[in-house]
Amino acid sequence: MASQSDLAALGRVAPGTAASDPVEGQAAGHGTVDAGLLAALAEIVGADDLSTATAVREQHGKDESYHPAAAPDVVVFCRETDQVAAVVKACAQRRVPVIPYGTGTSLEGHVAALAGGVCIDLSAMDRIVSVNAEDMDVTVQAGVRRKALNDYLRDTGLFFPIDPGADASIGGMTATRASGTNAVRYGTMRENVLALTVVMADGRVIRTSRRARKSAAGYDLTRLFVGSEGTLGVITEVTLRLYGIPETILSAVSAFPDLESAVNTVILTIQSGIPVARIELLDEVQMDAVNRYSKLDYAVAPTLFFEFHGSPAGAREQVEQVSALAGEFGASDFQWAERTEDRNRLWQARHDAYYAALALRPGCQGQATDVCVPISRLADCILQTRQDIDRAGVCAPIVGHVGDGNFHVVFVVDPADPSELAAAREINERMIMRALAMDGTCTGEHGIGQGKMDFLVAEMGDALVAMRAVKRSLDPENIMNPGKILRL
Amino acid sequence: MASQSDLAALGRVAPGTAASDPVEGQAAGHGTVDAGLLAALAEIVGADDLSTATAVREQHGKDESYHPAAAPDVVVFCRETDQVAAVVKACAQRRVPVIPYGTGTSLEGHVAALAGGVCIDLSAMDRIVSVNAEDMDVTVQAGVRRKALNDYLRDTGLFFPIDPGADASIGGMTATRASGTNAVRYGTMRENVLALTVVMADGRVIRTSRRARKSAAGYDLTRLFVGSEGTLGVITEVTLRLYGIPETILSAVSAFPDLESAVNTVILTIQSGIPVARIELLDEVQMDAVNRYSKLDYAVAPTLFFEFHGSPAGAREQVEQVSALAGEFGASDFQWAERTEDRNRLWQARHDAYYAALALRPGCQGQATDVCVPISRLADCILQTRQDIDRAGVCAPIVGHVGDGNFHVVFVVDPADPSELAAAREINERMIMRALAMDGTCTGEHGIGQGKMDFLVAEMGDALVAMRAVKRSLDPENIMNPGKILRL
Repeated sequence: MASQSDLAALGRVAPGTAASDPVEGQAAGHGTVDAGLLAALAEIVGADDLSTATAVREQHGKDESYHPAAAPDVVVFCRETDQVAAVVKACAQRRVPVIPYGTGTSLEGHVAALAGGVCIDLSAMDRIVSVNAEDMDVTVQAGVRRKALNDYLRDTGLFFPIDPGADASIGGMTATRASGTNAVRYGTMRENVLALTVVMADGRVIRTSRRARKSAAGYDLTRLFVGSEGTLGVITEVTLRLYGIPETILSAVSAFPDLESAVNTVILTIQSGIPVARIELLDEVQMDAVNRYSKLDYAVAPTLFFEFHGSPAGAREQVEQVSALAGEFGASDFQWAERTEDRNRLWQARHDAYYAALALRPGCQGQATDVCVPISRLADCILQTRQDIDRAGVCAPIVGHVGDGNFHVVFVVDPADPSELAAAREINERMIMRALAMDGTCTGEHGIGQGKMDFLVAEMGDALVAMRAVKRSLDPENIMNPGKILRL
Repeated sequence: MASQSDLAALGRVAPGTAASDPVEGQAAGHGTVDAGLLAALAEIVGADDLSTATAVREQHGKDESYHPAAAPDVVVFCRETDQVAAVVKACAQRRVPVIPYGTGTSLEGHVAALAGGVCIDLSAMDRIVSVNAEDMDVTVQAGVRRKALNDYLRDTGLFFPIDPGADASIGGMTATRASGTNAVRYGTMRENVLALTVVMADGRVIRTSRRARKSAAGYDLTRLFVGSEGTLGVITEVTLRLYGIPETILSAVSAFPDLESAVNTVILTIQSGIPVARIELLDEVQMDAVNRYSKLDYAVAPTLFFEFHGSPAGAREQVEQVSALAGEFGASDFQWAERTEDRNRLWQARHDAYYAALALRPGCQGQATDVCVPISRLADCILQTRQDIDRAGVCAPIVGHVGDGNFHVVFVVDPADPSELAAAREINERMIMRALAMDGTCTGEHGIGQGKMDFLVAEMGDALVAMRAVKRSLDPENIMNPGKILRL
């Protein structure tokens, strides 16, 4: 972990301190969106697909987080990669910032136009370009949403497993290296993107890779753009790996006497090589919220939700193995569901966890954060965080993709109460520094955006120098989503 | 795919033409290894761990390929990351090239010191730094070899699956993005490296990531260095994912009436989601070679070797499913083996394939090459390549990790016969261009090295501009293994 002196050497005093610098973009002398640029953009996308209306601009400068919003000067709606390339080229000539926008469901302030500029809305790029069923891959435009993709694929017997909470766009999921509940078995966007079409900062269009499943051909540009949050280029097409819809899907839910027993069941499940597809933890606060919100009567105790994929015999074997493990750790029961409607009800409760949390305090704001640690440290990290929350008397359920060591805290706070906001911010800071001290990361799946730039400094130490060098090499004028991930 | 005009724009006339440029390094005005540098190096590693002996230098300038060797000016044997950092710093001050060396088992001329300089031999960095059994990961120094690692791990019940042909070092496997026979189930080095310690071109030491299983924290530096072939920095420590040793391992072998039937069996196996651990194809030429070399009596026909990992019931279920599929495609028999000694004999034959090929023509040279295509194109690509080889009358068995769409041709040629060498070169060129036309890659696992730089141009088109920018940003003086992957 980086020491304080490392941080000082990197020009930061301490993680978590508010940035007092001017926004990077402004310091770098970005150009402004003038009549000439507006005319050029209208020429490219057509006047109907360009908007300077306040409502449209404000909507595009804000994601689902609590971070400061900032409206772009203009929003253009692109339909083809060539249009995106022409827009970026026009912006590059004038050094005007470019912010890609998918569904606006990111959680660390990713889409705010901190230095103004042009927002490229990709939601109309919603074409499935090609399905290669034999190769189990699909190429989509960046604006395709994950649920629409799976609806489209249903008849092929294939599916795409990555499922962040929101019905996000594939481009946005790629840009933030999203994951979700299936990652323990199927991996994250890192493992499931085969190739990308990217518009670079100079308007050049590149394809990062071929469709072959593996390659040793040069630098891994695909993985470099996955998780780059729009700061290195605009992702316009994505080729994804697909999987066969499992023959059998079984779900189960099980309550535990305490958090540690639940987490130890997870650890042993993973270590035993049981290919569990989902293994989700909801703590007692979250279970209480879920019961109230979804009118259920689960035990108010730390609870694991499981899903098993496989052949009929294979899936059942997994249930039996995990049930036995859970029993050893004192699980009170192990209810499993095979029927689609039973499974759906169970997972709907899990998916509604965020809204259930919000419903605990009507009128309050949800502030979601996440960390990820080596699984051996997970129980400690969650327990210490739970104690910290309880000590502060803040309302904040915990839910986690615990098979990966990844968990979320949702602070449900009164935005008008500065002391509550401060308490949430401090708990978040302590949780992140705790995760880093455990050799974990400041974010498992939400990304850095504006919200975690200081923590990235703490996490990466000198490696930040390499990140900055890469950023400067691919975006020398710092026009691609400036003010996110890195301070230059 | 890049067109000829794209290639011309990139400054290359056609892929496969010999490079007539001076070596990059020389053009860039690299410094020379003088008495001052030698003294500085001796100070860092100790006089006993530095050699300018001709035999030592020549051995270190040559890998297992047929590409031109080039001895470094001096070889230093490092034992710790700090030593490597000091050596690189000393070289950077003088703009002297640095070439990392693991076991010298690479296949595209990776270790040749084309512009002279200092070879850093990492083989003495063979310490297992830490095993985290609960987290199923291990951190090793770069010089640890894969077999030694698995010997060390045996008592933990864990193993590391990636198995290129050679008993390579983990550092070298990381640098070349190696894979092997288990990749269809366990992935390649791309999927199995969690974090790296890297000495950058200025001597700075960075850690690319934490031990958490997933992270959305900034650019994926880990994946950027995996496959960078020593051209961006020197990898000194590697944190790897581990897996539980399967409860049950079953192997099977099955001969097919033709290549197409064998490949179609593979496609259907993958599509059915059967989690086969290994699925290897040997064509009839290779089977004949294997029979002669290993004194076996397998049918001389296209043959698949399988391995299944799982619970006792799960592994047996996989065998039954695949056996049924193979039967549909006319497999003549499906012999399976559970006993360790039977499995070992079967896989020994597979592992000896290269030596068996060489034994077909004693005194001749083996020239291994590989491509990887989407699996739907695999049968076509292999069949057309087989026909091309047969038409030319060249001796060249085909063996493949066909579950990934990856296959190898080993040309067994008389190095004194220019027409044979030319024929092999031309078949290789046509095979690669065929793979690219099928949306495949010029190398699935051997890497670019010196041997495939022109094909990388053909494969990547404009994306090469991004690779060059990254290279220049992290190694502005081009001292890190110059003359490999990219011409600048």
